[in-house]
Amino acid sequence: MTKKISGIAASNGVAIAKAYKLVDPDLSFAKTSVTDVDAEKGRLNAAFDASKADLTKIKAKAVENLGAEEAEVFEAHLTILSDPELVGAIQQQIEKDQVNAETALSDVTDGYIAMFETMTDNAYMQERAADIRDITKRVLSHLLNVTLPNPALIDEEVVIIAKDLTPSDTAQLDRKFVKGFITDLGGRTSHSSIMARTLEIPAVVGTEIATTDIAEDELVIVDGLNGHAIIAPDEATITEYQKIGDQYLAQKAEWACLKDEPTTSADGVKFMTGANIGTPKDLPAVLENGAEGIGLYRTEFLYMDSNDMPSEEDQFEAYKTVLEGMQGKPVTVRTMDIGGDKKLPYMPLPEEENPFLGYRAIRISLDKTEMFKTQLRALVRASAFGTLWIMFPMVATLPEFRAAKAVFETVKAELKNEGVNFDDNIKLGIMIEIPSAAILADKFAKEVDFFSIGTNDLIQYTMAADRGNEKVAYLYQPYSPSILRLIKRTIDCAHKEGKFVAVCGEMGGDPIAVPLLVGLGLDEFSMSATSILQARSLIKNLSTTDMQALAEKALDLDTNDEVAELVKAATTNK
Amino acid sequence: MTKKISGIAASNGVAIAKAYKLVDPDLSFAKTSVTDVDAEKGRLNAAFDASKADLTKIKAKAVENLGAEEAEVFEAHLTILSDPELVGAIQQQIEKDQVNAETALSDVTDGYIAMFETMTDNAYMQERAADIRDITKRVLSHLLNVTLPNPALIDEEVVIIAKDLTPSDTAQLDRKFVKGFITDLGGRTSHSSIMARTLEIPAVVGTEIATTDIAEDELVIVDGLNGHAIIAPDEATITEYQKIGDQYLAQKAEWACLKDEPTTSADGVKFMTGANIGTPKDLPAVLENGAEGIGLYRTEFLYMDSNDMPSEEDQFEAYKTVLEGMQGKPVTVRTMDIGGDKKLPYMPLPEEENPFLGYRAIRISLDKTEMFKTQLRALVRASAFGTLWIMFPMVATLPEFRAAKAVFETVKAELKNEGVNFDDNIKLGIMIEIPSAAILADKFAKEVDFFSIGTNDLIQYTMAADRGNEKVAYLYQPYSPSILRLIKRTIDCAHKEGKFVAVCGEMGGDPIAVPLLVGLGLDEFSMSATSILQARSLIKNLSTTDMQALAEKALDLDTNDEVAELVKAATTNK
Repeated sequence: MTKKISGIAASNGVAIAKAYKLVDPDLSFAKTSVTDVDAEKGRLNAAFDASKADLTKIKAKAVENLGAEEAEVFEAHLTILSDPELVGAIQQQIEKDQVNAETALSDVTDGYIAMFETMTDNAYMQERAADIRDITKRVLSHLLNVTLPNPALIDEEVVIIAKDLTPSDTAQLDRKFVKGFITDLGGRTSHSSIMARTLEIPAVVGTEIATTDIAEDELVIVDGLNGHAIIAPDEATITEYQKIGDQYLAQKAEWACLKDEPTTSADGVKFMTGANIGTPKDLPAVLENGAEGIGLYRTEFLYMDSNDMPSEEDQFEAYKTVLEGMQGKPVTVRTMDIGGDKKLPYMPLPEEENPFLGYRAIRISLDKTEMFKTQLRALVRASAFGTLWIMFPMVATLPEFRAAKAVFETVKAELKNEGVNFDDNIKLGIMIEIPSAAILADKFAKEVDFFSIGTNDLIQYTMAADRGNEKVAYLYQPYSPSILRLIKRTIDCAHKEGKFVAVCGEMGGDPIAVPLLVGLGLDEFSMSATSILQARSLIKNLSTTDMQALAEKALDLDTNDEVAELVKAATTNK
Repeated sequence: MTKKISGIAASNGVAIAKAYKLVDPDLSFAKTSVTDVDAEKGRLNAAFDASKADLTKIKAKAVENLGAEEAEVFEAHLTILSDPELVGAIQQQIEKDQVNAETALSDVTDGYIAMFETMTDNAYMQERAADIRDITKRVLSHLLNVTLPNPALIDEEVVIIAKDLTPSDTAQLDRKFVKGFITDLGGRTSHSSIMARTLEIPAVVGTEIATTDIAEDELVIVDGLNGHAIIAPDEATITEYQKIGDQYLAQKAEWACLKDEPTTSADGVKFMTGANIGTPKDLPAVLENGAEGIGLYRTEFLYMDSNDMPSEEDQFEAYKTVLEGMQGKPVTVRTMDIGGDKKLPYMPLPEEENPFLGYRAIRISLDKTEMFKTQLRALVRASAFGTLWIMFPMVATLPEFRAAKAVFETVKAELKNEGVNFDDNIKLGIMIEIPSAAILADKFAKEVDFFSIGTNDLIQYTMAADRGNEKVAYLYQPYSPSILRLIKRTIDCAHKEGKFVAVCGEMGGDPIAVPLLVGLGLDEFSMSATSILQARSLIKNLSTTDMQALAEKALDLDTNDEVAELVKAATTNK
């Protein structure tokens, strides 16, 4: 029977395909005594062989779909499985304790895992513990004769059903066959959602019941536009949703025509639509989607995807690649924002009661000046290869900006002395993401070259609510008049001094927020590359004078919901 | 040789006395074998007897100085020490393992402690673990023949030197003999500092080196006015500081004359100075210091000092006591602010990454409506006994205030139905402590009866810095123009609607903040009772027109430090 379940619309589009459940099967087992030890060793060897065969196939698929680097983890698993010491230890355990292979396997691997895990300050060993855990699961599945989901081996069109998707799950998915996601957990900004938008796959997250209510192989519709999933749809429903999906694709095709167009409102006012990126690998999507610049290059991934503090040379190469790739279009690089929920294995940070209110971003950079100088040296050197803007995250006070600027000036003077070639007109700005900075925007505007409003953090601090905390997530209210007023103040103060303002948080690409931001006079909208063309199309249909009136009205409403209703009504009437 | 060390001025005044080090002596020992088991049992018994003698004396002193209730903990320790099972178990251990009494003692008590501590959800058992730990320390000190500090037994004038002071340490101190504190750790708002101000004892905290640099019995001067301590002062220095101390006492005596005076500025504008309290026990100090009302009654202590959710009746009694005690002067009660750093043993809260940005205060009350209704029923019933104002903490949005008000109206209707007598004109307000609320003050002012600005949290969220986190404590900047602007906005919006505004955070009694707040037009200053007369005296000497000009200037400065300098210069010139 057809059944509809609801969740959060996480990535646009409609998909209709069979369910593929990416959910671990029951791998529980009882400890039993065995008398025929050799037979038991035979079962173990067969399970090891079957596991190796799995992994060889998965690895080949992964190399093909994702490239050799992403497939390395499977090579590591194969190496461990082929280690005679591991299988030998389990065989000995079977013999010694006269127990079944399942028990011997988990006794031995639990020992390894415990050992690796005690090395808490060694990220490499922690990863080895995860490897052993993965391998154990695989061998156990063969011993128990249950099927482990092998997402890398999917070779027909499916919709993935999962509790949540981890980065390693998504790394294995083949975009050719995976048509959509439905998950139990997550919100619009969880990893699964961001991944779905990056891959341009429709997704509904946070359904709570997808994994229990959807059966393997059942036909399912993902309506990523409205946040619904339909289980076992009838013919009429399928036809209806195919139409919705086609309309969306037609709209997307229309958007695609805007790739090389400027971002201009209906009444001819020019805006900029830029992309947010994390690594040089994101460049192809940025270019494909016609970004007019990079509004936010998050450099912390350089630090996080490394076993060591990245060298000046490593950083220089990354920044240069991005600047060259953008061929003169402005690239706004944010200096590292470590701390908060982002840790580095090689740089111990203090344990904090409230890390989001703690030692992070510019607070660390100004404290660890050598690290900061290394990043700024790499950036200034890379400036020779394009148009570089630099901004500092988490600035709350003027002395912080002045101190950061002083380090920047020192670095420039040093490089000039060394005879290094660089752009002497690098623009220097700050993120507006702490209420204090927005309130003091008049002061900051006199000293910076530009602002970039980080709406995610700005909302979090202005509402005093951690948006990752589900008990208070309802207070993440981007359209609250309090947030709009801080944004208005930031833009007005910047423009009064002739300075440029971007939004690089979630609001930059949000169809409810964009009309308001147009009305408030924002200069640049920066967002996931895949949202750019939709935003550009949206702006093309808006009149700035109408949006000014709309924003004016919104600023004087009482609540987030009233503002959302106002914008919906105004933009649907069109 | 005379030596000066610096710290944080935590409580005003000057004290000169011998150092009393409240620092645990070295209680380490080696495990040794014994042959004469009986002799060893004898040592143990003697140590138990000596410990009992200590505790009997300490208990008597505590009853005398602090009352029977505070002395109960020592009675509990005596009961445990007299339990034949405990001493029996240790004797057996000596016999069984042929070890010294120290080893047997800690083996046995470690077992008890571990057992109690596994009961993590039982606050009572957790306290028993603390008891056993205290007793073990005491018996061990007698076995090792070292002296444990016994603060309850102090019978001459001393200055306490400690790493930090816990509530149980301060509970044992006799105000007659303890003339001052000097600690290694802590800030202006740590427990030791608040306690020192409550007891009106000069204190310097956060010196880092007091316990290492000051020797037992050494003469020491505590300069709580300037945050210094002088070790082994010479005659001239002693005379100099006696003079400073006397001037301060003269000033205090002058302040005392203001007890029954109104709070009026030099140019005749009336303000209110109120007290912040936590329990009805704080009432005597409130009355002694001539508070014109209670600006903040923190009700969470009712919940925290209890093993169970406090009943409506218990709450009613507490509120009634305070309302009656204030004899018609307004009492502003804040509904419970649990969560953040305040936990309840009997109400499990979710583990949170950032509790200060989480499920706390009104967010819990609106979620657990029954608990909220119980508190409001108790409050409304108590309103018959005085002038009650109620305010809600951590309000960020208008719907939250409306929802809380709706519960309040329901409670009133229910009580009316039940024929209960209450004041039908209870004023309803909100704390302004989340930036969003300050920004929307124009909207809130139309719906509430009053605002109370909680500057501690407001600063924390506006600066995105946890003031309890020493890595970012420098960002706790009360005079930052961003904070002053939010306060100005709050006051202006309230006054436009004819509503009343108080400040009940640290700023309310801060000599730098008070002139600014006078200039911004604040109605009520609420603070620790012991700061009221000083604030009243300060306001008496300020002209509101001068302060308006001062505040106007401060609002347009760049930094916290510039504002502090401005105020200091303006108020010292007078």
